[in-house]
Parts: sequence; C-alpha cells; structure tokens
Amino acid sequence: MADSPLPPGSTIGILGGGQLGRMLALAAAKLGLDVVILTPDEDSPASRVVKKTIVATYDDPKALKALSRLVDVVTYEFENVPAAAVEQLAALNVTVSPDPRALAVAQDRVDEKTFLNTAGAPTVAFAAIDSAEALAIALAEIGAPALLKTRRGGYDGKGQTWVENAADAPAAFARLDGAPAILEARAEFVRELSVIAARGRDGEIALFPLAENHHENGVLRRTSAPAPVGSATLEQAERIAAQVMAALDYVGVIGIELFQLTDGRLVVNEIAPRVHNTGHWTQDGCVTDQFEQHIRAVAGWPLGSTAATGHVEMTNLLGEEAADWPRLAADPEARLHLYGKREMVAGRKMGHVNRVRPLERG
Amino acid sequence: MADSPLPPGSTIGILGGGQLGRMLALAAAKLGLDVVILTPDEDSPASRVVKKTIVATYDDPKALKALSRLVDVVTYEFENVPAAAVEQLAALNVTVSPDPRALAVAQDRVDEKTFLNTAGAPTVAFAAIDSAEALAIALAEIGAPALLKTRRGGYDGKGQTWVENAADAPAAFARLDGAPAILEARAEFVRELSVIAARGRDGEIALFPLAENHHENGVLRRTSAPAPVGSATLEQAERIAAQVMAALDYVGVIGIELFQLTDGRLVVNEIAPRVHNTGHWTQDGCVTDQFEQHIRAVAGWPLGSTAATGHVEMTNLLGEEAADWPRLAADPEARLHLYGKREMVAGRKMGHVNRVRPLERG
Repeated sequence: MADSPLPPGSTIGILGGGQLGRMLALAAAKLGLDVVILTPDEDSPASRVVKKTIVATYDDPKALKALSRLVDVVTYEFENVPAAAVEQLAALNVTVSPDPRALAVAQDRVDEKTFLNTAGAPTVAFAAIDSAEALAIALAEIGAPALLKTRRGGYDGKGQTWVENAADAPAAFARLDGAPAILEARAEFVRELSVIAARGRDGEIALFPLAENHHENGVLRRTSAPAPVGSATLEQAERIAAQVMAALDYVGVIGIELFQLTDGRLVVNEIAPRVHNTGHWTQDGCVTDQFEQHIRAVAGWPLGSTAATGHVEMTNLLGEEAADWPRLAADPEARLHLYGKREMVAGRKMGHVNRVRPLERG
Repeated sequence: MADSPLPPGSTIGILGGGQLGRMLALAAAKLGLDVVILTPDEDSPASRVVKKTIVATYDDPKALKALSRLVDVVTYEFENVPAAAVEQLAALNVTVSPDPRALAVAQDRVDEKTFLNTAGAPTVAFAAIDSAEALAIALAEIGAPALLKTRRGGYDGKGQTWVENAADAPAAFARLDGAPAILEARAEFVRELSVIAARGRDGEIALFPLAENHHENGVLRRTSAPAPVGSATLEQAERIAAQVMAALDYVGVIGIELFQLTDGRLVVNEIAPRVHNTGHWTQDGCVTDQFEQHIRAVAGWPLGSTAATGHVEMTNLLGEEAADWPRLAADPEARLHLYGKREMVAGRKMGHVNRVRPLERG
C-alpha cells in the first residue's frame, strides 16, 4: 500500500457484519469512502448500509480473493477473525489494519496477558491451565477465589467461571469442558475504566478521554465519560496505551479495558483490537468519534481531534429493552442509535442511547 | 399507512440518489431503518450507502411497482420528481411524504409564489411571463431591474437573467429560449436567511435556529448559524414556516429561503420541500440534525430536539475545492463531510465543512 492517505472514493473492506461494522461503514461514508463487508451472515446489520457485501466464511479463499480485488485496505470489527483469513489476505498483498499480530494476541488470553506484561502493561497475576492438576497448583499460588476462563473464544461473560476454593478446582475445570484455560487472580478494583485510543499509520497517537464502565452479568451496561480521573491515572492510561500500540505497530482504534485497584494503580483486563462498546459515547461527546477515527487511521489519514464536547452517559439496549424505542425516540435528552438487528434475542446488543450534558468546567 | 410510527427494521424509499439522499440514508441507518434508493444514476452517492438501489427513471412504472413492494413509505431528496411518479405511487397505495402537493408548488415558480401569498407568506412582487410583450408590461409595473426566471427547472442560479430596463426586455426574454417565465421584483435585502423546519405526522412543528446564508453566482457558498436575530424576526420566520407547512399538510423537513428587507421584514425567496443545503450545519450544531429530523417525520416518529449545541460555519466544497481534503482532514477545527462523488466537476457540490465554536451565551 502506498504511504499516501487513501483518497475519497477508495474502498475499505471490513471483516464482520455486526453493529461495529455498521457504524464503521457509516463513518467511512461521511468521509467519502466506500465499504465492502465480508460476513457469513445473509442479512447483517452492516450489509444494509453498504452497496456490496460478500457473504462467505471469513477464510473462504474465493471470497477473500474477491474482496482483495475490491478494496484498498482491510480492517475488522471483531477479534475472532480466523488467522487463516488474514494470512490469505497478506498473501494477496492486501494491507490488513490493525496488523494481524493484534488479532493473534487478542484471541488467546494467555498470549494476551503475556504480551501485555512484556510490553510493560500490568495485568493481574495469571497462569495457563491445561489440567485440573495445573489449576490446583496455580490456585495455590494466585489465591482463591480466582477466575477461570477459556484461553480462546467467549465474550460478554461467556466461557468463564469462578473457582471459589481448592476443593472446587476439579469441578470448575470440568465446567469449561477441558478447554485450554487461564486462571486470573481476582482484581480488587474500585472501578472499571477503559481507554479508547488510536494510532495512525505515521505513529501518531490520540487518546479519547477515559470512560468509566459498569458491567452486569459480564455484559457492558453503562459507560460514563469523560470519567473524572486525576493526572496520575491519566498518565498511567496514556503510558499503557502507548506501550501496547507501539509494541504492535498498531494502526487503528484499540479498546483497552482497565481495572483501577484500591491503591490507584491501573491493570489491563483485556484489549480489543477494534472499535469498542465503551467508546460509543464518543459519537455524541467528542469532536471525532471512534468510528471515524478508526477509518481515518486505517485509511492513512491524520487522526481527528478527540476533544470532548459534552459529558455522555451511554446505556446499552439489550434484547427486549430495544422495544422501548418509542419512548426513547420521544425523549429529547436521548440520542438513540439502533443497529437494525431483526430479532430482540435476550441479552443481545440491539442499540444504545447517549445522554449528553454540558462538560463540567474544572 | 398506519398511524403508528414505523418500527425499526421498516424501509424508507427515497427518490433521488444525490448527497441529500445519501445523508438521509445515513440518518435512517442510525435509527435502525433501512432505505431503498430509486435513481436513474448507475453509481449514485446514495446508492453506495444502501443495500438496495433501483436504477430507473423516476416515472418507470415497473420500477415504481418494485419500489412499492419494498418500502413502507416514500420520500424524495429533490423537488423535480415528475408528478407522474408520485401519482403512480399514490395509485399503488404508497404514502409519499412530504405530500406531492409540495412538489407541485415547488416545481413552478409562479405556482410557488401564488401559493405562498395565499398561505399568508409574503414574497416579492412577481408576474407570470409568457411573451416579450407580457414582460414589458410586467416590468413597467414591478420596476427595473427585475429578475426573469424560467417557471420550471433551473437551480443554483441556472435559468435566470436580470432585466436591466425596458429596452432589454426582448433580449432577456429571448435568453430564456421562450420558456414560460416569472418576473420577480428585486428584493432590497440586507441579508439572506433560511429557516429549516419540520412537521410531524401529528402536526407537531419544530424549527431549527435560523441560518444566515451567502450565495456566490447563485450557488450557496457559506451558512452561519444560529444567525443573530431579534424576536420580531424569529416570530416572522416561525409564522411563515407554520403557515406554509399547515397549508400543505406537510410531513418532513422543509427549507425556506428568506430575504430580510431593509425594514426588517422577511419575504420568502423560495421553498424546497426537502432537506436543504442551508441545514447542513445542523449535523454538527444541533441535538438532532435535519436528516434525522426528516426521517423521523416521514416515519411517523416524534420530532427530535432542534436545540443548538454550537455555532457553526458551514462552507460548501465546490468542484476542485474538494481536492483540498488532505488539509481539511488535518484541521482539528473542520468537520469534513464528503459525498462520494466520482468527479470534481466545476461548481459541483462535492462536500461541506462545518466549523464549530461554542455558542455565545446571551
């Protein structure tokens, strides 16, 4: 790919057809860029806002070849894109941004935490687990209760279980059906923060203001941003984001979930090499939102301003909550974003609402 | 059509594939609504942000029938949709919003001004012209110089000519190739304002703050909003918008171009039964923008808040000016909107830039 930015009229391929792909496509359109979606879903949220969708599995060689002919760069909207897909795209001389290394570390929780620690980003203590015996040994070292998760797959609280004590270890390991796992020490955190950051093709970095997040049953419920944080916290977050992105030669937006511990330190919970649910507030609270920022980065454009224009409380609409749209549409305080999903499955992310109030001047 | 609002997942048909259709489609997507475009253009700006486009002339019976099967309501993005098209849609029991009566009055400058005066909205003096003799008589009554325009067609300053004096009348009439015309008195205006207003299916009305506009060579160059206006001016604008929309049983967003005369009075220059270039500032300056507002209205949703969140200066990017995108993309003060047009034809509207600053608190 040339070093110069992709001009308007260029085409970005997106692997994945969910709401993140949809909002990325809408942001690309604002900048005069076209999008082609590759998704196995016949009727995806993203496919309805682009002219061209290739419906195929992500590692379908024919589909990837067809995609490569249509696009100037490829990005992805979720981290479980098969490695085979990005390898094939690389073989076709297609630039994939963020670099597939980010996918590799995000797809395996042990690799992820190992990478993070190597990059200088602190995490909770952890151990790779491949047997009930290994779990017992790790539990003795890390301490109970601790969280046992599959190394791969799982999101929104799926594929994880608490290990309450040593006696519970065999049963806990069995609950994951023998999948390779990671044991994570419990983080004694006072709040969950996230930093949404971007790195351009030239290495330029821009952080959005930090967000404070509230999960319920493993699913993001609410984000409040900009979060009130002191300079020490902000400096930690900036250092973590810079270290992680530099180590991955990252291009695009990244979501970094953080725990703030009782002593004020930040540890990384996980990273998502993509736009992130905890960054949806930027749509109504920042000069540039995370979707436009990601498109700017992968298209080689300069990053946009991440300055906050308001204080936002973002609430996810899960499952049947989206049926409340008539009330939300009538609420002058609510900025409604719906994803066009056909069925209100329980727990499914159907949309979100941003409520904006003026920034506190401090 | 049912009286209840169209639920997310419903489909809106848009006649026209230009930038206004494109931005309407993007706004619909945000609300979880799908869009089908009908346009004769094989590769239109709007078609690239929707899954389904019907490429046909606007009055193609087969195309209109196909459209009618796909959509829950039809709207349009330009006022020169042939009457035959909307008649066919009506015969197919498709609701067209705004009501085709708005199209009829907007397509003929004599009908438009006659309608406006009847509705109680003042205009400059005018006369229908169908011969050089009629022009001479009207000129004597209205006074020279006056503006001679074709009754139908023409936009952005095309199809019009000044008549400087009585001697010039035959030549002026000849310059319009004998087309049916209108002679308009010169408005001694101090500024050009516009009001972008919306009316919901239930008759609810919402006005955006007034905008002040600067045209060059008949083409909009720059909009500044909210315009500083006194309460008397605002009341005039509100009354005009309310009278015009009520008289048309209007549903959707309307653009009303106004001249403010030296004595402070507002007269209507023209109305556009659609979203309007002088409303693009709302994308970065209001809680709800004009595109979402139009979609809300035609979908039977409650109107959104039109409160200003900032002061915006909107500048159109015409023709080769769009080649300046790298500089604009790097300017943290510029919010860039590009339309995805393939060729930078001289004078063509390629995009716009909104520059936002905090509202003056008065």
